[in-house]
Amino acid sequence: MADASTIRFAAGGPPDQLRQGSGGQEGELYESAVTQIHGGITAPLGFLSAALHCGIKAKTGALDLTVVAATRPVSAAGLFTTNLAQAAPVLLSKRHLQHTAGLAQAVVVNSGCANACTGTQGMADAETMAREVASALGCSPEQVLVASTGVIGVNLNMGKVTPGIRTAIAHMAPGKGSDVARALMTTDPFPKEDAVRVETAAGAFVIGGTAKGSGMIEPNMATMIGLLTTDAQVPPALLRRALEESARDTFNAITVDGECSTNDTLFAMASGASGVVIDEDNYSVLLDGLLAVSRRLAVDIVRGGEGATKVIRIMVEDARTGDEARQVARTIANSPLVKTAVHGADPNWGRIVAASGRAGVQFDINRATVHVGGVLLFENGLPHDDAAPRAAEHMKGTDVDIHVHLGTGGGASATIWTCDLSAEYVRINGEYRT
Amino acid sequence: MADASTIRFAAGGPPDQLRQGSGGQEGELYESAVTQIHGGITAPLGFLSAALHCGIKAKTGALDLTVVAATRPVSAAGLFTTNLAQAAPVLLSKRHLQHTAGLAQAVVVNSGCANACTGTQGMADAETMAREVASALGCSPEQVLVASTGVIGVNLNMGKVTPGIRTAIAHMAPGKGSDVARALMTTDPFPKEDAVRVETAAGAFVIGGTAKGSGMIEPNMATMIGLLTTDAQVPPALLRRALEESARDTFNAITVDGECSTNDTLFAMASGASGVVIDEDNYSVLLDGLLAVSRRLAVDIVRGGEGATKVIRIMVEDARTGDEARQVARTIANSPLVKTAVHGADPNWGRIVAASGRAGVQFDINRATVHVGGVLLFENGLPHDDAAPRAAEHMKGTDVDIHVHLGTGGGASATIWTCDLSAEYVRINGEYRT
Repeated sequence: MADASTIRFAAGGPPDQLRQGSGGQEGELYESAVTQIHGGITAPLGFLSAALHCGIKAKTGALDLTVVAATRPVSAAGLFTTNLAQAAPVLLSKRHLQHTAGLAQAVVVNSGCANACTGTQGMADAETMAREVASALGCSPEQVLVASTGVIGVNLNMGKVTPGIRTAIAHMAPGKGSDVARALMTTDPFPKEDAVRVETAAGAFVIGGTAKGSGMIEPNMATMIGLLTTDAQVPPALLRRALEESARDTFNAITVDGECSTNDTLFAMASGASGVVIDEDNYSVLLDGLLAVSRRLAVDIVRGGEGATKVIRIMVEDARTGDEARQVARTIANSPLVKTAVHGADPNWGRIVAASGRAGVQFDINRATVHVGGVLLFENGLPHDDAAPRAAEHMKGTDVDIHVHLGTGGGASATIWTCDLSAEYVRINGEYRT
Repeated sequence: MADASTIRFAAGGPPDQLRQGSGGQEGELYESAVTQIHGGITAPLGFLSAALHCGIKAKTGALDLTVVAATRPVSAAGLFTTNLAQAAPVLLSKRHLQHTAGLAQAVVVNSGCANACTGTQGMADAETMAREVASALGCSPEQVLVASTGVIGVNLNMGKVTPGIRTAIAHMAPGKGSDVARALMTTDPFPKEDAVRVETAAGAFVIGGTAKGSGMIEPNMATMIGLLTTDAQVPPALLRRALEESARDTFNAITVDGECSTNDTLFAMASGASGVVIDEDNYSVLLDGLLAVSRRLAVDIVRGGEGATKVIRIMVEDARTGDEARQVARTIANSPLVKTAVHGADPNWGRIVAASGRAGVQFDINRATVHVGGVLLFENGLPHDDAAPRAAEHMKGTDVDIHVHLGTGGGASATIWTCDLSAEYVRINGEYRT
């Protein structure tokens, strides 16, 4: 996972006039109307895809190029890394979404080369990728979004990429989402895809998604990339709002090692092919569907983190604000001592208390409680060490729950997912490069 | 080092009327007037000490209790952890310094038990420690400072500590600073002490110091503790200002894993026995001496960090402000990817660029440069990969320099020391506890 793990996306594209008044009533509709289905990124109507090996991953011959396209320009939105060092495809895609005010026909992604820290040649190559897709599909280059993942500081081999794009577009087909999921992978241990059907009063629509985490690619860093598609009909500004809101509690709520990459990108496209129209009134059904798909993909990224053996869910409750809850949860999630303790199935409440106490958030440690796996370990400023063996039993599993109640009376909460820190993480990231 | 490594001290004690107008011209006087000498914490005149095994470290029989005392109440200052979870001795010592407006005769420190998360009993025990020292020395309990380091969530065995204090005070003697250094240790791989003689126009004075890092103590966390003594005559407020100012660029400029403990404490005492009077005019000679001692102790803490094989010096230059320079340096220092890369002697400029870019500080990545061991690796947004082998050669040593020039034109700089992240760190901190 390495370099792309505290994912902090900022929105790209046109300003949003639809910000006030969130409709997300998560949970309520979620269980009744959202059903998990097969098909991944191409489960929704109106999307075709192709994936192939063009030659970037020369050593393995694995899939390294993919195009996902709608049958015409449709609503699109993007979230991008907040890192100051942004790769050429990130800068280009932001510019395209701004230029079109949220309209795109296709996304082209290569793996194996991040096209980051590549200067003016890198930007020219990203532009070429968009132009090649556009000319084959008959849309404008600004209606093509680009993402890259893999080695940084190395230029794309356009002699491979350009013919690859042409071949891919000649072979676009429905129902091939799982190839897209594989073409995104770098050192991900498994492909990640998900889809849901959302039933509404006005009919059903489908949301599909795929994502990759990141890992050590030959010498250097990689990226988190996510693609989401839906056949609901959604205005661009509303799609962006839903993408931001769902990412906040999913893709933006995971961390492996606190790092944030040069290339992190999350795209959404809405074809409208289901005929179900999303507006302010039924916005929450779109949000619920996006949350369901995004949460599964995000947790899968953590599960596939470098050296990870356990997924840790950190729930912070009764903070003064949601931001403060997130800040405490994130501090615990990025604590090397908490992560190594979980790796060793050690119910070390002291490290959780100490991480909470240094998070920069005000609370009274004597009113806080710490549970691990539902077992109370710390209360009234004092430990419950007699309960530690039961908590240790829970921690031997692959999914560990840490629950910190801050006792501020504020009632705000947040959940962050992370993984444990293992010697394998150090091995993967500490190997001699040059 | 584990739990006490991003040390963030806040001042305890009385408010400071002497804040404006720093006199620290480091470097200028440093080389001419400051000479390293032997003797550690008892090198300055006017301090006695004793150290013994009272029974807390029952398994090893190692030194676990020490008292350092002046011959009368003298100027004293303290800096303490900024963690919300503060151990009883931290709370007590802050109260004492406030009550006396910066006057103390003795410091008592135990190792092997942090007396943290121990509730009202813990506070009563810390008070007993101060009272026992005071009654034996004939000062008031408020003139005694207390620090503890070791396991948290466990009460002190006062049946061992109280007789230990009485025995220690019966055996106080000069010239035994190295025993103090050993009595502070928990899992520190080596004791840490230093002393300097400072020549001034008005005569010479001496500064001595000792410190411990932290490591895994049986089940739980430990602490950074530092003690500094001088035989200069310094008003309490000026001593505190010098302590804060010197700690900022030394003890507060090191990090091992970004954690901040419940017990971190740094004390300074000034006996005045040299007859050299420090005031606003010659304040810089005191600061230079404190900087010299504190920097060596702080870097030694990093060198003794858990699993550390290398000390990394991160210099960030040409930031807009000193705080921004520190923020970038700290983000690089706490990046697991940078730390694992250094462990593997991998001149991975991409990870340094990415960590700088996510530090929350504005700069233009295309104007920034990255040097490792003096070798230019990144400039104008592009890598110099041909130079990587020379940087890798430098990184094979035990001391690694990373130099990031932000190119803002602001000219502000900061240095942070950290260590590499090794599989041994994970092993030490991930072992099953209960």
